[in-house]
Amino acid sequence: MTVMIGVDIGTTSTKVVAFDLHGHAQASANNSYPLCQSEPDMAEESPEEIFTAVITGLKQVVAQVAGHSIAGISFSAAMHSVIVMDADDQPLTQVLTWADNRGAAFAQQLRADGRGAALFARTGVPVHPMSPLVKLMWLQQAQPAVMAQAAHVIGIKDYVLFRMFGRYVQDYSLANATGLMNIFTMDWDPTALALAGVTAAQLPQLVDTDHQLKQMRPEIAQLIGIAADTPVVIGASDGVLSNLGVAAITPGTVAVTIGTSGAVRTVVDHPVCDPNGRLFTYYLAPGRWVIGGPVNNGGVVWRWARDAFFADRDYDQLTALAAKVPAGADGLLFLPYLGGERAPLWDADARGSFIGLTRQHDRATMLKAVLEGITFNLFAVMQLVAALAGQPKAIQATGGFARSGLWRQLLADVFAAPVTIPDSFESSALGAAVLGMQALGLCPSLDAVVDMVGQTHTQQPSDDAAVYAELMPVWTDCADRLAGAYAAIAGFQRRHPNANAAVAAQD
Amino acid sequence: MTVMIGVDIGTTSTKVVAFDLHGHAQASANNSYPLCQSEPDMAEESPEEIFTAVITGLKQVVAQVAGHSIAGISFSAAMHSVIVMDADDQPLTQVLTWADNRGAAFAQQLRADGRGAALFARTGVPVHPMSPLVKLMWLQQAQPAVMAQAAHVIGIKDYVLFRMFGRYVQDYSLANATGLMNIFTMDWDPTALALAGVTAAQLPQLVDTDHQLKQMRPEIAQLIGIAADTPVVIGASDGVLSNLGVAAITPGTVAVTIGTSGAVRTVVDHPVCDPNGRLFTYYLAPGRWVIGGPVNNGGVVWRWARDAFFADRDYDQLTALAAKVPAGADGLLFLPYLGGERAPLWDADARGSFIGLTRQHDRATMLKAVLEGITFNLFAVMQLVAALAGQPKAIQATGGFARSGLWRQLLADVFAAPVTIPDSFESSALGAAVLGMQALGLCPSLDAVVDMVGQTHTQQPSDDAAVYAELMPVWTDCADRLAGAYAAIAGFQRRHPNANAAVAAQD
Repeated sequence: MTVMIGVDIGTTSTKVVAFDLHGHAQASANNSYPLCQSEPDMAEESPEEIFTAVITGLKQVVAQVAGHSIAGISFSAAMHSVIVMDADDQPLTQVLTWADNRGAAFAQQLRADGRGAALFARTGVPVHPMSPLVKLMWLQQAQPAVMAQAAHVIGIKDYVLFRMFGRYVQDYSLANATGLMNIFTMDWDPTALALAGVTAAQLPQLVDTDHQLKQMRPEIAQLIGIAADTPVVIGASDGVLSNLGVAAITPGTVAVTIGTSGAVRTVVDHPVCDPNGRLFTYYLAPGRWVIGGPVNNGGVVWRWARDAFFADRDYDQLTALAAKVPAGADGLLFLPYLGGERAPLWDADARGSFIGLTRQHDRATMLKAVLEGITFNLFAVMQLVAALAGQPKAIQATGGFARSGLWRQLLADVFAAPVTIPDSFESSALGAAVLGMQALGLCPSLDAVVDMVGQTHTQQPSDDAAVYAELMPVWTDCADRLAGAYAAIAGFQRRHPNANAAVAAQD
Repeated sequence: MTVMIGVDIGTTSTKVVAFDLHGHAQASANNSYPLCQSEPDMAEESPEEIFTAVITGLKQVVAQVAGHSIAGISFSAAMHSVIVMDADDQPLTQVLTWADNRGAAFAQQLRADGRGAALFARTGVPVHPMSPLVKLMWLQQAQPAVMAQAAHVIGIKDYVLFRMFGRYVQDYSLANATGLMNIFTMDWDPTALALAGVTAAQLPQLVDTDHQLKQMRPEIAQLIGIAADTPVVIGASDGVLSNLGVAAITPGTVAVTIGTSGAVRTVVDHPVCDPNGRLFTYYLAPGRWVIGGPVNNGGVVWRWARDAFFADRDYDQLTALAAKVPAGADGLLFLPYLGGERAPLWDADARGSFIGLTRQHDRATMLKAVLEGITFNLFAVMQLVAALAGQPKAIQATGGFARSGLWRQLLADVFAAPVTIPDSFESSALGAAVLGMQALGLCPSLDAVVDMVGQTHTQQPSDDAAVYAELMPVWTDCADRLAGAYAAIAGFQRRHPNANAAVAAQD
């Protein structure tokens, strides 16, 4: 048997999976590392720990497939990370991850003065503290001594590959996600670089996502247990590769994810940008761009609802309770913005609301409204995507919520499209492996993934779709009406932090 | 001892109280009657049952004060009631009470086409299905046969007095509340009469609130156990008499009530109308007009919060839990419009909302926000009152909530004024008795009530007043933003009535 190894460098762990050439997982390893959040809005990780997790995972998987042929290795990684390296190729900073929000004021300023809209229109990256462009603006101000020594500014995958190959290279996909690359010229954007205070010479060499790296350091190859000339494909970002890994790469097929957070993504054949800067546009491969939006408020909101309203029940009981409440939750609307929101609002000050309460409503109604509100918000992102890519014909749904039949039906009804749960294992790692196979000539096209990914459930829209079609504009109207109120509410909350939070829980 | 008897004909019972000339209650009786709500929006009562309750109550109190001198009897009654009588002085209808909303479509139409604003500016009565003007428009359409036989159109106090004296008379105060009287000419309004389809000849004779009725029917006097020439003063409405009965009749003193519903009222010396029709202007006595606004959402909302969130705890436990949450509820805002709202919105479609939710909020935060939201809404009415009558210097607080120290403090902090709980017994009955004393020359002026009413608690504003001053504009902004959303939400709720309401309660 021949295997292709996909490596997915994620935020909390690195997954390494060996797939056969039909996309079936044959071996896997998962190695975690901590996220350091020791000050507000900070979210850092150790580059050394991540490198160790990658090498350890590769070694574990290579051992598991001993006796089989390893065709190659291909990489996926989390977007938006920043590491500053000195002239001796030593890290001057930890990895600033996508979740690090310390540059919020710079993002706000760029949005407020109009420069943000112009940058977005060239880079496809919403102006937000997640973006390395914004992180670098913050670093210049907060850590000028570090930036004065900066010989190289790279991302986590670049760091791992540097340790393996001694070269600084970055694929178009992750470069795109930095907010520093012009997606129409496929080169660094001079205005963005000037804002970030870096030069092209400090940044890695740009390569396409099927680029092969050569001459692995022998000691690394030995550590992993492979030949030093094993083909290594650079791959892309986890965002676009997860679309590939769930076979959502044909027009009209939309990937919807709800785990703790969520996302709506689809593939188009050329770079287009949302005119209002609310969606990202990320490169996958020639003629394949992923557009979509990430949402903060997914399962984390469902967990809050359980803790706030039914701390004594488990999630299955809550789902059963919500299932008894008719579609539309008796007109109770929920805006799920408990943790601020990225798409579709891009407002860190956004807050949650229940709207439309009557005396007939109870905690079960509120639960149903929470599920519906999370889904309406994803559909609000879908409506932005549809304006650029057309209406969805089929949904590939992933994430923890996909295990719930109630939620799958809700998704089919709100999106008015059939919902399929792809039977794929570690979709970003599979995406990396498929990209690697195509780069190495082991499959004719990325479309081969469609035959690799099976299906577990498919749910058709029910009669409730009409109810949601009726309620969605009311929900949107309420969301629009409150959008201007969040700055004042969040301002009050910042001025009056509540030391007595969660009184009832302790009571 | 000399006593003055106050009779208060309320919505659920008639209270009869004998007061000495210092305003101390010496005897009392309370006789209830049912409210018939057998179809949606209907709220009727039997005139015969109410008449019986009045006579029974008088008889009981007269027996209790046997041996003392009865100076007179004076009447208070609920506003906005309608009874249609035939040419033989027999009721053709039940009593349509203030709570009967079957004329809602007519009120909506009057508001929409601008006629409502003009009517309000002359009558001082917000255009609402509570108003007899609107009730008569509805009766003309719904029960034309009844209206064709209508010889007299009267209210419940007029009915009781007709049974006692054989005359149809109505005091300016209750006539004012019909929406048919011009408060600047103190006579029926021809336009209002034309809309209602009645003539002045069908309506009772208008008299001032200190008018004395003579020649009680001997059989009634005998039934009660008093001399037929006992002085009887017609009195006023319960709304204005309760202000008198809690000694809120001087400029700057505001009566705030929260029972199931609530109200904010103060006295001015001449009729003025809110330019936007959101406050009532009701006559009490020469040079004394009560302006204010009634709110639907008082204790009934607190009861909902208990049922929805903490069905296993009692109100004292909930108050204690809410007291632990800091002022401002960590920026969680609550609009209390669960049952539509009269003042300040006058929108039967209004609905409740929680706005500003974060993951730090729990049920205790929500409870505190509910208490604060109910109070903010009363203060929103206060702001309208203040625009006509000036800022409040002192609050006289009454109703079931006044028993709670937490709520009294909240009221003092939100209103930024000292809150006193008057030590008065049955304020509308006391108001009637004081008006009777003044009419009969037993006290020099209605101001005498100030010395009659004691105080139980007085609460000064605390440091939290600054927090509420900061949060109130944010609350108002949210209330304004959502005001236009209610029609669509209520429309959805009407189209999708929820047979499974209160799932959790049964679960």
